[in-house]
Amino acid sequence: MAGIVLPTGLTSAKLDQARREFASVVGEKNLFFDALDRDSYRDKFAIDEAGHQPLGAIAPISAEEVQAVVKIAARMKTPLWPISRGKNLGYGGSAPVLSGTIVLDLSRMKKIEVDVDNATVLLEPGVGFYDLYDHLQANKIPLWLSTPANSWGSVIGNALDRGVGYTPYGENTTKLCGLEVVMPDGDLVRTGMGAMATAPTWQLYRYGYGPSWDQLFVQSNFGVVTKAGMWLMPEPESVLGMDVEFDRPEDLGPLIDTLGPLRREGLLQANPTIGNWLRAAAILTRRSDWTDQPGALSDAVIDAIRKKYGMGWWGVSLRIFGREGVNKAIYPILEKAMTDLKPLSLKPRTWRQGEPVEANPAMGVPETFPMQNANWHGGRGGHIGFSPVLPQSGKRALDQFRQTYARYQEFGMDYQASFAFGERHLINVNAVLFNQDDAAMMKRVDPFLKSLIADARARGYCEYRTHLDYMDTVADTYDFNNHALRRLNQRVKDALDPAGIIAPGKSGVWTSAQMKERRS
Amino acid sequence: MAGIVLPTGLTSAKLDQARREFASVVGEKNLFFDALDRDSYRDKFAIDEAGHQPLGAIAPISAEEVQAVVKIAARMKTPLWPISRGKNLGYGGSAPVLSGTIVLDLSRMKKIEVDVDNATVLLEPGVGFYDLYDHLQANKIPLWLSTPANSWGSVIGNALDRGVGYTPYGENTTKLCGLEVVMPDGDLVRTGMGAMATAPTWQLYRYGYGPSWDQLFVQSNFGVVTKAGMWLMPEPESVLGMDVEFDRPEDLGPLIDTLGPLRREGLLQANPTIGNWLRAAAILTRRSDWTDQPGALSDAVIDAIRKKYGMGWWGVSLRIFGREGVNKAIYPILEKAMTDLKPLSLKPRTWRQGEPVEANPAMGVPETFPMQNANWHGGRGGHIGFSPVLPQSGKRALDQFRQTYARYQEFGMDYQASFAFGERHLINVNAVLFNQDDAAMMKRVDPFLKSLIADARARGYCEYRTHLDYMDTVADTYDFNNHALRRLNQRVKDALDPAGIIAPGKSGVWTSAQMKERRS
Repeated sequence: MAGIVLPTGLTSAKLDQARREFASVVGEKNLFFDALDRDSYRDKFAIDEAGHQPLGAIAPISAEEVQAVVKIAARMKTPLWPISRGKNLGYGGSAPVLSGTIVLDLSRMKKIEVDVDNATVLLEPGVGFYDLYDHLQANKIPLWLSTPANSWGSVIGNALDRGVGYTPYGENTTKLCGLEVVMPDGDLVRTGMGAMATAPTWQLYRYGYGPSWDQLFVQSNFGVVTKAGMWLMPEPESVLGMDVEFDRPEDLGPLIDTLGPLRREGLLQANPTIGNWLRAAAILTRRSDWTDQPGALSDAVIDAIRKKYGMGWWGVSLRIFGREGVNKAIYPILEKAMTDLKPLSLKPRTWRQGEPVEANPAMGVPETFPMQNANWHGGRGGHIGFSPVLPQSGKRALDQFRQTYARYQEFGMDYQASFAFGERHLINVNAVLFNQDDAAMMKRVDPFLKSLIADARARGYCEYRTHLDYMDTVADTYDFNNHALRRLNQRVKDALDPAGIIAPGKSGVWTSAQMKERRS
Repeated sequence: MAGIVLPTGLTSAKLDQARREFASVVGEKNLFFDALDRDSYRDKFAIDEAGHQPLGAIAPISAEEVQAVVKIAARMKTPLWPISRGKNLGYGGSAPVLSGTIVLDLSRMKKIEVDVDNATVLLEPGVGFYDLYDHLQANKIPLWLSTPANSWGSVIGNALDRGVGYTPYGENTTKLCGLEVVMPDGDLVRTGMGAMATAPTWQLYRYGYGPSWDQLFVQSNFGVVTKAGMWLMPEPESVLGMDVEFDRPEDLGPLIDTLGPLRREGLLQANPTIGNWLRAAAILTRRSDWTDQPGALSDAVIDAIRKKYGMGWWGVSLRIFGREGVNKAIYPILEKAMTDLKPLSLKPRTWRQGEPVEANPAMGVPETFPMQNANWHGGRGGHIGFSPVLPQSGKRALDQFRQTYARYQEFGMDYQASFAFGERHLINVNAVLFNQDDAAMMKRVDPFLKSLIADARARGYCEYRTHLDYMDTVADTYDFNNHALRRLNQRVKDALDPAGIIAPGKSGVWTSAQMKERRS
């Protein structure tokens, strides 16, 4: 194991002993500590390939095995990085914050228990969107998922990182209802109504009695989630909507100010996402098809891309879900709101129960082809996300866009971004596309992202989610009262996980001993 | 201060010194330690008048004063029981679990900051539903509250005890977005996006970055909430609906099985509540107007009550909120669903923007007259709630009703109950009405409630909220893995509040030292 970084306090001899103990729990064939294994669990989209190197991986099959593994890890002081399916690409994939951490790979845990009447499901972390979709289809269960644009990941994993989908069930974390969690000492907790052993309401009422814990285990390192309840959407009778394109960059402002009130009043039940012109080209073509000029794409190239795909500078898809008669009453209101904005084009979309469903996250169907944007630059492609949270204000969004776009041009990067609505907020997801084989480009990525974080911070905007490289940097931006929330997280981390073995550094949370060591 | 119980570790001399220090923070006139003061903060609906006696009260005006008071309390080991407006009647009012606790009365903290564009508000705990309603009316702000049936309490207080309202914004706790909390050591934390000092998104995106804390401070004693963000509902263009009565007890089952799917699909945006025949009579009349017979009301009396008010055995109000054209598309679907059940009566209700709004929680208007049911038996009246959580199943609800109704008859109590929908669950709220001057009746209340708790537990149902007297009993029913969730709460309580000074015993959560003392 030459060249492997061991975490503080761990020796080779201790690691060997820990491995033997881990093997006695999960079996030798579910331990992955070879060089190839280590490589397969690292961040495929890493900016710095030397960072975040896992020591190996352990793949338990059950909560009982997770408990046993965690107890060994706590005793032997081997930190663990739990992943569900490890597809958190753009934010670190399956790699840990701290090199030398062992990946706790939960992808073998694939149980699915659907409660058809109540429209809920109890899932293990290894269940992917495709797994659950296939299960529902095979059993003719009329319940829909809320799938993200790249759906190869875990349903729970997405919810536990606050990922989003495009149906009215939108942000998956809002549909979590009841968790089973292995605590850092190996104890097993069930949250909400699951805290009663025989309750039939674990997936039905999320709060339970007293403090409610579900969201404490989201973007968190306080425990390892081994089961999660989620609500599923009853299949609607009809889906109506429209795809709308807008010609000018400045159309973003009025569009947001039109959609915001419709979303807040609930006429739009789902969260629209406004995306720019690169979204089709980056998936269907490569940059070299359009230009061989370095630097950000010129206006002439942007015009060519837009012309080829009939796209505006911005586009948005609106969908309404429910009874056909109700949808027909809503549609003209949306149509008028959009035509008042003088769009470049407006294409109606209709679907009713029984018709074939197109592969589209708006219809709860998993897809993965948007990930092809990793090939935009050629070479070993990748991308990293920068995702600050904004108010639903056209002026603020436009200012944020202009500043960000100028930075993309300054750093010579191609602009791919979206403004995704929540019920009261916007998330401005910026994808930084790169080629890992282009050393000059890779050198620009880190200063570029740091500029974006600093720019946003100056306006009062922080990220809701970030790449491993920036977890501490982003935690630093949450600065109220000398980082009171981080200090609170740290106190609880110290109490629940004094050795700091579960996902050290996740979301910038460390034990106080680890924090002291890092700062010294 | 004769007859006053002092908490463990507190002496009269230390209390005197603590009082002097408290006075230096809040001023002598905001300390309330006389016998009359103590009486005014006790539980007005107590089953046992000797239980839960406060030592006195302190009423700070700001978060800074709360911080100073909490720091003194931590040093002097004087436990504090935070209340907002103290109107948690049926669950303990303003009284603490532990006699000798000092009430931390936050009712002077009444700041309201409305963000009209984003339909949010930042509130201090002393703001009541009437205060906020008056503020919105006076400033012609077209935003609606979700008021409980008795609306004299605090908006935050209701959300922090998981109280419910009757508009689509329903359970107020679901609309919390960003808290400011004084921790047990006096530190000040802001949750969600408030963890960034300059973020304009504190009331817009609830999760922030990393573990999300809001729900950890609900039904909790981990800190004192001094500000809370909440989302308000944009005034709808129209409200349509119907009040429907059903003739027979067994009509409950099909009614629940009809409403459940409509609620889950979202056609019903708000949570219907099904109530029995006593709900009007208990408010508008007294028991002595109907009968002088002891024991549960006879079928003849029930018939007389129903006849007088034109009520069924059960009744339900359905309301839909939004654009008029959309509501008109929804209405016939609901009307058909209800008429298919052959109701006793169905009365349509309509309202459109600009028309006068009736005083009704379904319209977000505060009211208090339902509290008159405390006078049902005459004497010093009162009531206590028993509120288990059930699945949305007609069969289960009917079984639960039949068992509970039999217990009411066995214990000679008059049945007042409702089945209140959530998005996936039902809460079966049972009001136990009594006369504190009727010693024989009062003697029956405790064994009656313990029977109800045990009956429900045998079916897997636990309460979502309970009276001070039953906080430990109900915590005991959450028994998964040797009360793993309670043990987790206790570890965090020990870490954040080692002296156990904030709301000891709230929701059955104590420090381990307190728990050990109580069990010895």
